[in-house]
Amino acid sequence: MRIGIIGYGSVGSALHQLIYERAWDFKNRYGLVLQVVFVCDRSGCVYREGGINPSETLSVKKSLKTLSSGFNVEPVLETIKKGVVDVAVECTPANFVNAEPAYTHIIEALKNGSNVITTNKGPMALYMPTILEEADSRGLVVLYSGTVGGGTPFIYFADKALKGNKIESFRGILNGTSNFILSKIINEGSSMEDALFEAKKLGIAEADPTLDLNGTDSAAKLVILLNHVFEDKYTLKDVEISGIEKDIPEVDSHHTVKLIASSTPNPHVSLEIIPRDDPLNIDGTYNAVEFKVEELGSVYLIGKGAGGRETAGAVMRDLVELKNRLQIQYLRKGYSHIF
Amino acid sequence: MRIGIIGYGSVGSALHQLIYERAWDFKNRYGLVLQVVFVCDRSGCVYREGGINPSETLSVKKSLKTLSSGFNVEPVLETIKKGVVDVAVECTPANFVNAEPAYTHIIEALKNGSNVITTNKGPMALYMPTILEEADSRGLVVLYSGTVGGGTPFIYFADKALKGNKIESFRGILNGTSNFILSKIINEGSSMEDALFEAKKLGIAEADPTLDLNGTDSAAKLVILLNHVFEDKYTLKDVEISGIEKDIPEVDSHHTVKLIASSTPNPHVSLEIIPRDDPLNIDGTYNAVEFKVEELGSVYLIGKGAGGRETAGAVMRDLVELKNRLQIQYLRKGYSHIF
Repeated sequence: MRIGIIGYGSVGSALHQLIYERAWDFKNRYGLVLQVVFVCDRSGCVYREGGINPSETLSVKKSLKTLSSGFNVEPVLETIKKGVVDVAVECTPANFVNAEPAYTHIIEALKNGSNVITTNKGPMALYMPTILEEADSRGLVVLYSGTVGGGTPFIYFADKALKGNKIESFRGILNGTSNFILSKIINEGSSMEDALFEAKKLGIAEADPTLDLNGTDSAAKLVILLNHVFEDKYTLKDVEISGIEKDIPEVDSHHTVKLIASSTPNPHVSLEIIPRDDPLNIDGTYNAVEFKVEELGSVYLIGKGAGGRETAGAVMRDLVELKNRLQIQYLRKGYSHIF
Repeated sequence: MRIGIIGYGSVGSALHQLIYERAWDFKNRYGLVLQVVFVCDRSGCVYREGGINPSETLSVKKSLKTLSSGFNVEPVLETIKKGVVDVAVECTPANFVNAEPAYTHIIEALKNGSNVITTNKGPMALYMPTILEEADSRGLVVLYSGTVGGGTPFIYFADKALKGNKIESFRGILNGTSNFILSKIINEGSSMEDALFEAKKLGIAEADPTLDLNGTDSAAKLVILLNHVFEDKYTLKDVEISGIEKDIPEVDSHHTVKLIASSTPNPHVSLEIIPRDDPLNIDGTYNAVEFKVEELGSVYLIGKGAGGRETAGAVMRDLVELKNRLQIQYLRKGYSHIF
């Protein structure tokens, strides 16, 4: 499987490394030969038909900051439009205003015959129905398990582990940064300023944590999970959003407050008072989702949120899923092998 | 898909009902037409080529206790040996001495060309490697997601939601009855006798709760999960087992004690002291497993254990999985449709 990586920051570079580490295992376990033929950052793309060893590009990226400082690069869109990969992996940072440049990367990859894996929430939160239709109409696949809880497979849990069961609703903590800060405020009596300072010091909060604190990041993940679980067509504007910057309600010792994204009655993100022994009462940077399932009652999935290697791990799941999907398509057409 | 149900107690009867309720949904969502053509209890089997409406057999079973009191039945093995179903679902009660009569039911179903779904842990805990080899050699499928945490899809979580990731080890609470009793003893200072009395009153403990309390039930689930996750060949005798009847260690207010089944270093079930804020510190009849994943760190799955409808829900997942597996087999052979 020929792979192109667009975005070479913490996720893209961890992915390149992980593909290299797992090459033997993937061939052995899934019959899947993985080969990275281009990697791109803001400065342009390095493309090599025979594959790129991560040690080369990662060392240049680390020491010289941009790929163009160490390689002859070509413009990103030009490389994508060549259509030389089976799958283009979009891992540039999210932008919830117009989702660019990722949205164009994804659409151009599809138009040129490449399947897409995205870890970037922006395009999915704003244009998920359009993107999936574009892919469907071309018989291509778009996968996105890294967009919601990279470290915790919420997406595949909902449709694969619960396939055959009936999910009625779900709610949970979808942003680790705000959960860390809120835990500090409630449990240790920290001020918002002190908690945020500590989160930045520990690398948990970014320089500009606005989207984490005002609920937008949680809402984006809620949209993606809603569309995925209920085959719906929500976008970010359908979600009522509030964050943790407003007044945090006072609670007694048996309760706590969490920023909860909820599918029901209408999609919303807001502060909620929950009992201390609710499994969703999980501190630190964890994410946690409660799925209400008709036959099973409540099932809880808890794990780490974002992080370069964790999100790269999500892409590895998507690569196996992509192979399985394509295999069924190919078998239907009467071919016997792929890749 | 033609289905036979062997065992018509809480799981078997809930399954018959659930198949009936979901028939439309399964046809619509998965293209899967479900038809129950035989149901069996200890007294024998009711077999109808055109399908059995659950209202008929369930009312006889409920009012007259045995199917033979209301129907002309035929011997169980005779019905199984006809090989008239695509899948035989084995849901008789577990027996960890020789796994009979379930083991013979499963082997005879396979020998006569039926795939098998089992919710009965006995045959899998004692003979899982043999059973899977028997199925493999005939190109048949054996599925068993109801054997481990019927209400919580541990089995499919491990191999489907985490496919492409590397599970290094796992540990958790796999028996709801002992967890309920232990929680009462630790948190409320109940005696073992009082806690057991309350569990029986609430229908959480069976008349003879020995296998729940001495760790055997947890160990059986551990064996199945081990073989499933690591493609290994463990049986019950490979697990070091202790239960909750022995001395329960004293702990301070920041810790608690749980009966933990663990894959590592060697498979074992024993009382363990864990911090109170460990996500595995979950009370009541919940089951909870921590999977340690190389790229992701710890991921926790928490939900209900056994229960008739919950375990029947697990069989519904297996039915969808069976269809997908058979579809790939059929496509490989050049057929275009199944069922």
